[in-house]
Amino acid sequence: MSDEFDVVVVGAGPAGENVADRAVKGGLTVAIVEGHLAGGECSYWACVPSKALLRPVDLVAEVSRVPGLTMGPIDTAAVLARRDEAVSHLDDTGQVEWIRGVPAEFVRGHGRLDGPKRVAVTARDGSVRTLTARHAVVLATGSAAAVPPVPGLAEASPWTSHEVTVTGSVPARLAVLGGGVVACEMAQAMHGLGAAETTVLARGGLLGRMEPFAGELVAASFAEAGITVRTGVRVTGVERPRPGGPVTVHLSEGPPVEADELLVATGRRPATGDLGLETVGLEAGKIVEVDDSMRATAVGDGWLYAVGDVNGRALLTHMGKYQARVCGDVIAARAKGGPDDLPALRDTADAYGAPQVVFTDPQVCSVGRTEAEARAAGFEVRVVEYDMGKVTGAYLQGEGYRGRAKAVVDERRRVLLGVTFAGPAVGELLHAATIAVTAEVPLERLWHAVPSFPTVSEVWLRLLEGYGL
Amino acid sequence: MSDEFDVVVVGAGPAGENVADRAVKGGLTVAIVEGHLAGGECSYWACVPSKALLRPVDLVAEVSRVPGLTMGPIDTAAVLARRDEAVSHLDDTGQVEWIRGVPAEFVRGHGRLDGPKRVAVTARDGSVRTLTARHAVVLATGSAAAVPPVPGLAEASPWTSHEVTVTGSVPARLAVLGGGVVACEMAQAMHGLGAAETTVLARGGLLGRMEPFAGELVAASFAEAGITVRTGVRVTGVERPRPGGPVTVHLSEGPPVEADELLVATGRRPATGDLGLETVGLEAGKIVEVDDSMRATAVGDGWLYAVGDVNGRALLTHMGKYQARVCGDVIAARAKGGPDDLPALRDTADAYGAPQVVFTDPQVCSVGRTEAEARAAGFEVRVVEYDMGKVTGAYLQGEGYRGRAKAVVDERRRVLLGVTFAGPAVGELLHAATIAVTAEVPLERLWHAVPSFPTVSEVWLRLLEGYGL
Repeated sequence: MSDEFDVVVVGAGPAGENVADRAVKGGLTVAIVEGHLAGGECSYWACVPSKALLRPVDLVAEVSRVPGLTMGPIDTAAVLARRDEAVSHLDDTGQVEWIRGVPAEFVRGHGRLDGPKRVAVTARDGSVRTLTARHAVVLATGSAAAVPPVPGLAEASPWTSHEVTVTGSVPARLAVLGGGVVACEMAQAMHGLGAAETTVLARGGLLGRMEPFAGELVAASFAEAGITVRTGVRVTGVERPRPGGPVTVHLSEGPPVEADELLVATGRRPATGDLGLETVGLEAGKIVEVDDSMRATAVGDGWLYAVGDVNGRALLTHMGKYQARVCGDVIAARAKGGPDDLPALRDTADAYGAPQVVFTDPQVCSVGRTEAEARAAGFEVRVVEYDMGKVTGAYLQGEGYRGRAKAVVDERRRVLLGVTFAGPAVGELLHAATIAVTAEVPLERLWHAVPSFPTVSEVWLRLLEGYGL
Repeated sequence: MSDEFDVVVVGAGPAGENVADRAVKGGLTVAIVEGHLAGGECSYWACVPSKALLRPVDLVAEVSRVPGLTMGPIDTAAVLARRDEAVSHLDDTGQVEWIRGVPAEFVRGHGRLDGPKRVAVTARDGSVRTLTARHAVVLATGSAAAVPPVPGLAEASPWTSHEVTVTGSVPARLAVLGGGVVACEMAQAMHGLGAAETTVLARGGLLGRMEPFAGELVAASFAEAGITVRTGVRVTGVERPRPGGPVTVHLSEGPPVEADELLVATGRRPATGDLGLETVGLEAGKIVEVDDSMRATAVGDGWLYAVGDVNGRALLTHMGKYQARVCGDVIAARAKGGPDDLPALRDTADAYGAPQVVFTDPQVCSVGRTEAEARAAGFEVRVVEYDMGKVTGAYLQGEGYRGRAKAVVDERRRVLLGVTFAGPAVGELLHAATIAVTAEVPLERLWHAVPSFPTVSEVWLRLLEGYGL
């Protein structure tokens, strides 16, 4: 078994897998190293299980808005069982087979850089195998939840996304630290599945990186559903006297919160702490800065690449996979000595602002820049907003449909800089906006793209009319 | 009250209303004539009530695919009550107020052309008011269901879309003549709401104008749900001995079908039979041919326009409204003597192939040309198909998700000529395709429009990968 490959990929999550796939399609040999499960966070402890938990909760909300329909109580055990199926019962056999079918060499073990173009892989039995890359090493180890240095927090063994997504039971009382996507989604899921007392504790508002109305709509929906949201609070201390027992969260304002479990969802850090970055002159624990071809900018000779969460561009599976396609292709192009500057060989999408869907009720999705970001970047901005509940297609989705759409227009070029939708089940509306924003389709051409009646997508017409077309 | 206006619009459905709105915004005075209800077929007897009936049925199907959820039986009375609310209890007060607020003159009565630029309006009391147009008359009277000349059919007083959409009760046994959109949607709705014996009788297959897999998936779903589909049959005769009693449908093959109601959904004819077309040299009952500015091509002096179903371009509310926007704007431009050939003043969307959503389970939607149409038009075609059930986002929608996507590519220009999706709740996926097709976004740019994970929209990535990007 040779230990030399054209490309060595560290991390077999979606990003690493896609690098391997594209590089092999480009004629290269690839080894891919994984210390945990092939498939990565996304497949087992993030996107996939969280959406498996959220889907039934979402449908219950949808049904509640449609007269004539009634539901029985959710069978939480059945939901958890399907979630288990969705994460393949935490067995990566299928993923490993997929990798071998690429074909790529799958190397199980903890991979660390060991100087230029070398990766030392420590297997579970302690044996070390050193892989050498002829052309490139690609780091794709992702990220992990960051637990803030609050007194007593680490000692309380809180849940992170890693635990909540694969939980075998739903606590009756859940406290959630954070107001971002993971916090909101998991509060929604756990509450819908039986966490009657769910409390979200956020330093700012909810979904603070998105247009302000997004978090406001989610907060209003949470309040109606009986999820407590306390914004503008800091956690000052955590107590959990008995492991597995109740946990008390002390706050900068107001009474403490007692819960059966505490979920920390306050941010993520790149999984680069034990990756041997120091052997190639980089700093352990930091993101690996890359150029638009995914090549690490601070390493000489251009052999090191980083895709997905480790490069800090966008902590989103689909963007990691996109970067991986760019990366695999550009490594293959460079290995062949072919042109390496074609448009397909550059990450241009991240610069526009990555698309993202938040699977709460209402769902929230956005692509491109918020109004604030666009103004800060110096664009000549015009904004159009529309109350999505006034769209006929939205009315037909159910009673009390509430939602909002916002388009941020670059007035000089008359193209969209950003679009945000919030409303029930709007997630699938996003891709139209993603095309419009990243392909810079002029408003005058969007005007002739007629939304079908009576879909919710007719909001596009209303936005363009609102702009004055 | 003056009887002279800049523009006289005949027909206050969505198309007519939009002409009025845009022409008034363009500085013109407008009268709009309606013999039935302001708001038109769409608002009372087509899109709106049909979707109000289909939404709960659709949700029941969605829920049935998600483990852990159970539903009680549909309360059909409650569904019909919300449908009644959706059609404003067949009261057009709100629509008339909207028209007056445009502001436009609303004239209730049956409008007929009475020579160039003249419209005679016969009120219910028989009085006639003749309106004169300084600039333009716009025909927007829509279409009506066509009942084929089958022996005994007319005498059996069958339902058309007009009756089924506003029915106050659901027949136990329903026979449906036709295999198109109305036939499929109403078979689905009535069956879901209690028509246990629903039989679709189609001369060809289902949804014959779309990609073949669309009708095949709907037929398979119907079969599973217990809706009988008999394709390749002609109706040879209909008997209904007692008004309101059972109806027997005799067929070219196989046994006759007995049902409690018979729905005819075999096509539509333009509502131009009693419109005075002959007074301006046109043929009554035929469509009114128009150019891309919606101007009737066979009438001199360019004062007559036709939008929506009457011009035969696309029998779809949203395309009628689009044509209406073009029409109202171009009339205003011409009245002012301004440039009348800007891109916004031409219907360019219909030529690409109108977008359409069929709200069955699975939903079907398409825009642009089918493969067959593209080949017939002489394009150098390449086709990519993908099994939508293999998209992670689709798997997360529920068990047994079945669907298919197809992209028709113009190989010379590397743009999409057409896209079809079939699968549960795919309707909101369409607008992305509508933008891509009508804005002719090159595949190379679509490649950088990254679909969010894990949405069903990730099928876009799979299609582009399948193409070879």
